[in-house]
Amino acid sequence: MIDSRIDGQPAASVALADRGLAYGDGLFETMRVERGKIALLDRHMQRLQLGCRRLHIPLDIQLVRREVCSFAQELQQGVCKLILTRGDGTRGYGLPQPATPRRILQAAPLPQWPAQNAHFGVCLYPCQTRLAIQPLLAGLKHLNRLEQVLARAEWQDPAFAEGLMLDTSGRIIEGVFSNVFFVCGNTLLTPALSGSGVAGIMREQVLELAAGQGLAVEIADLYPDQLGRMDEVFTCNSLYGIWPVLEYAGHSWPAGPLTRRLQSLINGQDT
Amino acid sequence: MIDSRIDGQPAASVALADRGLAYGDGLFETMRVERGKIALLDRHMQRLQLGCRRLHIPLDIQLVRREVCSFAQELQQGVCKLILTRGDGTRGYGLPQPATPRRILQAAPLPQWPAQNAHFGVCLYPCQTRLAIQPLLAGLKHLNRLEQVLARAEWQDPAFAEGLMLDTSGRIIEGVFSNVFFVCGNTLLTPALSGSGVAGIMREQVLELAAGQGLAVEIADLYPDQLGRMDEVFTCNSLYGIWPVLEYAGHSWPAGPLTRRLQSLINGQDT
Repeated sequence: MIDSRIDGQPAASVALADRGLAYGDGLFETMRVERGKIALLDRHMQRLQLGCRRLHIPLDIQLVRREVCSFAQELQQGVCKLILTRGDGTRGYGLPQPATPRRILQAAPLPQWPAQNAHFGVCLYPCQTRLAIQPLLAGLKHLNRLEQVLARAEWQDPAFAEGLMLDTSGRIIEGVFSNVFFVCGNTLLTPALSGSGVAGIMREQVLELAAGQGLAVEIADLYPDQLGRMDEVFTCNSLYGIWPVLEYAGHSWPAGPLTRRLQSLINGQDT
Repeated sequence: MIDSRIDGQPAASVALADRGLAYGDGLFETMRVERGKIALLDRHMQRLQLGCRRLHIPLDIQLVRREVCSFAQELQQGVCKLILTRGDGTRGYGLPQPATPRRILQAAPLPQWPAQNAHFGVCLYPCQTRLAIQPLLAGLKHLNRLEQVLARAEWQDPAFAEGLMLDTSGRIIEGVFSNVFFVCGNTLLTPALSGSGVAGIMREQVLELAAGQGLAVEIADLYPDQLGRMDEVFTCNSLYGIWPVLEYAGHSWPAGPLTRRLQSLINGQDT
């Protein structure tokens, strides 16, 4: 059983000079491994590339891809987490010139979420922690995740499988570790992530599958006062797929037909 | 010459499971060491305690204080950087129960800023990177510092010793690695940090010294269109003390008498 690697070599610890530790100066991808393959590998690599461009981190994407695939082959099943940091730095925020990014791979078993989350649906905790609006970082899966840490610390009750987060302007944005979708009539809606949030891999996959099915899809600013008009709600991420949402803040929904249709499409197509 | 320690032991690397790396889940303090002592130690420890309370990180402040003092004694002169993370975690944002925070101490020489910065003054680069508004994290010196990384990457020209950052609402907040003060008539002004920014140790010290001198002090929302009314501007941090600001975005100021008075007070009282 493999455990973790840094820059291709087995390793259990990282240099104290790493800017990932000092400043959260890097990105990550949490990838599902099934039968030795990374699910949705191309999308993960594309998001990583986008993040590196926006953070000015030089990236050898072919090298990362080879290492990730080799790691998945050995792992066979579980979670492959990739952390890409800007590498070592000296004191101060200035970028090291040149930067030598560090590739960290960590293996973990697939999380043991209750099977009923996908089968029956989940309740969402109404998080009070709001997401700040920062267009420069919005959409990226970067290492600055204190907002998610604070939000997840708000509840212990296992009756809530996830929490829903708004931004500081009151828009619905995402779950703590998921994206969120709404069905309103024949339209599939999901929050715009231009100011905050993580543009999830499974969110992209759902959007593409829905468009391929001829569904109307809208990426929009959504507010809690619109929830009463929604017919179905679900969350998604790249590890668990889709969970129907049954309850949130006094609203309730069924695990509806469009959610079920997308679930079966995802289950059939996700690798 | 000592280099770095983790939890009291010499160490050059940190466990990959550390949540400081995974999420930037921790805090730091960058402290000046002179003649074996930490300058403004009490203030550093107080800010660390405040940060730990707000992030729900358990803290043995007496242990941290002892380790920091012992480290400073060995270092004699330079910079002592303390990183306090929430310690190891397993996958996911949920807090480890119980958390075992990790204390990381790193030594560095004092930065070699040009002596003229303090003697004559500096020019500030007008950063385009805006600070997001997040009251839950405002004021803390936490490890989520991608905004500072992006801001510092905006300029290479050494003619700018620092950059000035606004928040996403256009308020003046701080330098990339400093706080900022303004003198308007007989009043000393500094931006409120209730939405973003780091409440610097030297900022606190300047506020206290100014109040002790009977100066009028205001902590306020400040906007760039007020800059024309300012008589003096300076930045400060706990490593360099005070730098007069000579230029920013078409405005210019002298290194004025109140700035000089505060500089000499700081130089006389900073340990």
